[in-house]
Amino acid sequence: MNAEKIPDIIIGRLPVYLRALQHMADNGAKTTSSQELGDHVGISAAQIRKDISQFGEFGKQGTGYSIQFLIDKLREILKVNRIWDVVIVGAGDMGHALANYQGFIDRGFQVVAIFDNDKEKVGRKVGNFAIEDTDGMIERVKSAGVKIAMLTVPAPAAQEVAEKLVQSGVKAILNYAPITLNVPHNVKVQYIDPSTHLQRMTYYL
Amino acid sequence: MNAEKIPDIIIGRLPVYLRALQHMADNGAKTTSSQELGDHVGISAAQIRKDISQFGEFGKQGTGYSIQFLIDKLREILKVNRIWDVVIVGAGDMGHALANYQGFIDRGFQVVAIFDNDKEKVGRKVGNFAIEDTDGMIERVKSAGVKIAMLTVPAPAAQEVAEKLVQSGVKAILNYAPITLNVPHNVKVQYIDPSTHLQRMTYYL
Repeated sequence: MNAEKIPDIIIGRLPVYLRALQHMADNGAKTTSSQELGDHVGISAAQIRKDISQFGEFGKQGTGYSIQFLIDKLREILKVNRIWDVVIVGAGDMGHALANYQGFIDRGFQVVAIFDNDKEKVGRKVGNFAIEDTDGMIERVKSAGVKIAMLTVPAPAAQEVAEKLVQSGVKAILNYAPITLNVPHNVKVQYIDPSTHLQRMTYYL
Repeated sequence: MNAEKIPDIIIGRLPVYLRALQHMADNGAKTTSSQELGDHVGISAAQIRKDISQFGEFGKQGTGYSIQFLIDKLREILKVNRIWDVVIVGAGDMGHALANYQGFIDRGFQVVAIFDNDKEKVGRKVGNFAIEDTDGMIERVKSAGVKIAMLTVPAPAAQEVAEKLVQSGVKAILNYAPITLNVPHNVKVQYIDPSTHLQRMTYYL
């Protein structure tokens, strides 16, 4: 297995497979087929077999995939067979929603801090966290060794905050600000922008 | 132009191009090149030229693209040269964040109602909206002719609510619940699940 050679588009589908497999396991299922998994996630069985075969031989002809084995393998490949610390920057509505979101821990993540530059907000509680001042963010994130951040600041502030996060040693940013970030090549960015997702559907209406 | 033949993966990139072009126009730019646009969105210039050429001849050799012309064309293709009404189901943290989000109207969308099944919440204000009871949702959405919904209910409730939305005539669902929905083929679903996006990045860490 050569990690560098697996196309990004395949990597992008693996978390979706993992989520569906975990859902099956939660419902008590032990084995599945590429057909069944494909029906769950809306991807062809052939594509699923091809994607999974990139990582080795997981299924047996005729008996399908062991769900738990595949879950374990996918968690290992995606490096979520551990818990990653994550910080949130921006304590607005979206920051609050993410700080209170219960769905991270089962997927390999835990929020450890939330920052805002509004002095009025600093010290206020969001869930289990007291909002911290972005003034101390670089040192704080660096010393905690946090590699992942979720960015929920307004668009005009996003690039500057992203640069500070990069300085802090962050290597992965989940960006909720509706703007494309300019970061070094060794920093990954994923975008969550509801309007972009909505526009992708209006085409078909 | 034959809409049926354009691959979904290209359609998925068009809203990203549109967002970048609008950003350039907001900053006063008049023309751009596939190279510059590519740098903005992290996609190769060749891919951008190929994607855009699917819809006709928009650029002139040597002079690049007129930003406003391309914006107008993309808005027309994506059908966001109008404002679409959208409903939110689920008045938790995420529902609140979306109801208060200011970034929809410029991109072709406006929230017109928010529903929840918690009788305690019904009638409370979220931004400009009073939360409505999901009991009346099917009739309300049907009579308003709303085609787009954002789903922010807990995962165990999501499938049932999605079915009600389909009954109401909704054709596009932006699903924030971390579960794959089973809907008819003529209904589009897009997923926003922060854990999936995060897992896509941990692979590279």
